[in-house]
Amino acid sequence: MFAPSTAELLADGRQSEAALAVQRGTGRLLRALGFSLVTELPLASGRRADIVALSPRGDFWIVEIKSSLADLRADAKWPEYRLHCDRLFFAAPPALGREIFPAEAGFIAADAYGAEILDDAPEHRLSGATRRAMMLRFARCAALRLHGLADPTMRFDETAI
Amino acid sequence: MFAPSTAELLADGRQSEAALAVQRGTGRLLRALGFSLVTELPLASGRRADIVALSPRGDFWIVEIKSSLADLRADAKWPEYRLHCDRLFFAAPPALGREIFPAEAGFIAADAYGAEILDDAPEHRLSGATRRAMMLRFARCAALRLHGLADPTMRFDETAI
Repeated sequence: MFAPSTAELLADGRQSEAALAVQRGTGRLLRALGFSLVTELPLASGRRADIVALSPRGDFWIVEIKSSLADLRADAKWPEYRLHCDRLFFAAPPALGREIFPAEAGFIAADAYGAEILDDAPEHRLSGATRRAMMLRFARCAALRLHGLADPTMRFDETAI
Repeated sequence: MFAPSTAELLADGRQSEAALAVQRGTGRLLRALGFSLVTELPLASGRRADIVALSPRGDFWIVEIKSSLADLRADAKWPEYRLHCDRLFFAAPPALGREIFPAEAGFIAADAYGAEILDDAPEHRLSGATRRAMMLRFARCAALRLHGLADPTMRFDETAI
């Protein structure tokens, strides 16, 4: 038996191959823009955000990944993500086309190697209290995941963040 | 050739075996107390803190690990860590003895399996601006390290946090 690889430990098995490709390319774009990011962050609402990105000055963007039209149609609650970020984007493979996505959110076209912002997102600034709560949640989740990798007895129940 | 293991990727080669044992046991104690933590966090001063721990309500503790008397004596600048946390502790193997450590900081006795707070640390609350800067630094460092594990092209220069 082999120990699980880092990639296996980090993957949570919920994303399709197509979604993981979009996640990777979008992550590279966000890093190039100066953001750090946490994937699959559990929010106060109980939902998980696909990518939460933190700018060096403390702004939060959420990027929701859609790898198919069905995936987009199944998500009636996407406007709720706005309550947890300063800007909200969808990210999708270029073949899907920007026009099927709501105009009220930004749009990122992405493949496994990179991504591009095709439409910027309107800004809706978080309150100070919500920003502070998001910062704690983001910091805590990233630190707990790292700790679980360094000391496997420290893996944890992510729903309790 | 084999890919490096997660533990190899997370270790930075600066710590002795003894220091790593104290780090692991102290990490378990801090988690039991509700903290999340980042090891070897680069601070604004340019130094690295051995362990920075974040409480669920946003308090910061710094724990400096000393695995020998020589290690303690070589560190004349430990009071500076106070500028970056609400409480400062030393952590050491039980054999070293609390009495060789400064009384002005808290003290944790630790081995590889666990730890105990033998002396609590005085509280010196961070200003709002410094707390916000520490929170960003902690969040960013943890998220960037995770990203580097998930996507190896995203490894980064930690001195640039």
